[in-house]
Amino acid sequence: MTDAKFLSFEGIDGCGKSTQAKRLAAHLTTAGQEVVLTREPGGSPGAEAIRQLLLTGATDKWSAETELLLFTAARRDHLERTITPALSAGKMVICDRFADSTRVYQGATRGDLRGKVDQLHSAMIGREPDLTLIIDVDPEIALTRGLARNSGEDRFEDFGLPFQQHLRAGFLALAAQYPQRCRIIDGNRSPEAIFTDVLALATS
Amino acid sequence: MTDAKFLSFEGIDGCGKSTQAKRLAAHLTTAGQEVVLTREPGGSPGAEAIRQLLLTGATDKWSAETELLLFTAARRDHLERTITPALSAGKMVICDRFADSTRVYQGATRGDLRGKVDQLHSAMIGREPDLTLIIDVDPEIALTRGLARNSGEDRFEDFGLPFQQHLRAGFLALAAQYPQRCRIIDGNRSPEAIFTDVLALATS
Repeated sequence: MTDAKFLSFEGIDGCGKSTQAKRLAAHLTTAGQEVVLTREPGGSPGAEAIRQLLLTGATDKWSAETELLLFTAARRDHLERTITPALSAGKMVICDRFADSTRVYQGATRGDLRGKVDQLHSAMIGREPDLTLIIDVDPEIALTRGLARNSGEDRFEDFGLPFQQHLRAGFLALAAQYPQRCRIIDGNRSPEAIFTDVLALATS
Repeated sequence: MTDAKFLSFEGIDGCGKSTQAKRLAAHLTTAGQEVVLTREPGGSPGAEAIRQLLLTGATDKWSAETELLLFTAARRDHLERTITPALSAGKMVICDRFADSTRVYQGATRGDLRGKVDQLHSAMIGREPDLTLIIDVDPEIALTRGLARNSGEDRFEDFGLPFQQHLRAGFLALAAQYPQRCRIIDGNRSPEAIFTDVLALATS
């Protein structure tokens, strides 16, 4: 069993993290661990309502600043209503995206916003995962996977390939900034090969 | 004509400020001024969507912290999409509630939150009205007026009379804190008597 009680998966859309998060949760549950599998934006009824505002509509629906406030609002609700109660009850929390996504999507892509991202996180969230697995993948492969899903929640995918390349660089920079909790996994492989790494890191 | 280009009305629910804001906008428009009448939360398509999340549902739907983030998100969108463009075009903006409502509703009622209210305002909004008219009214009278409206947007009214009394004290304290831009108007009178004061202050 792992010591990491709060584990997040990060990476660009289509990197395979949702598949891996589900697989890890299923594996640990079978092994007898109490696991809460959740995701951002969303993960609580209030945050899921905010998710609808964020992920649907045109790319210019919100400014980066308004987006940052909405993601932080959703995260605060998710933390209060889902994550903290689960951790307090001794359960493991596996979260598909957390604050690192905001650092990369709203911070790395608009350099002048990164200070505000950190300021809001510090004032309103103030909590990091114990372990963050970043699934790193070629953006061209990821974009194909993402568009194939056709979920309707494609507002960020609609920003295009150069944006996804910028995001990938942002996640790699983040891993360098937080080496203690971040691990990079090569996502340009089969789901089985990726899961071998995920399981080894999550249970080491 | 007034020099105040950005004017806000403040006060507890049922104080009569929406009626007065409409009346002032109509009066100034008839006098030839270009006026944008708007309100918070809301005032732009994105902010109106956030308004629905904030004003409907149970009183414990959101924590004070999440509420603060959602109100600030709505305000940022409103400022970017409605207020700033109108002021830049030389129009006058009359706004039914602005940041003072957040200071009182989320700040005054939870004393420990006031620091975060100010921090978020400074980081993400950074703009005050030129003139703020606070309609001060007995909370028992206001509550009767508010409930009579039956709009469905009654989540804050559902907090009850002691909460409204606390809010009233909060608005009066705010007027003392920002004497340069805040004026208190006695709202325990007829709409006509109140409007005489509103017009005098707005056009002086």
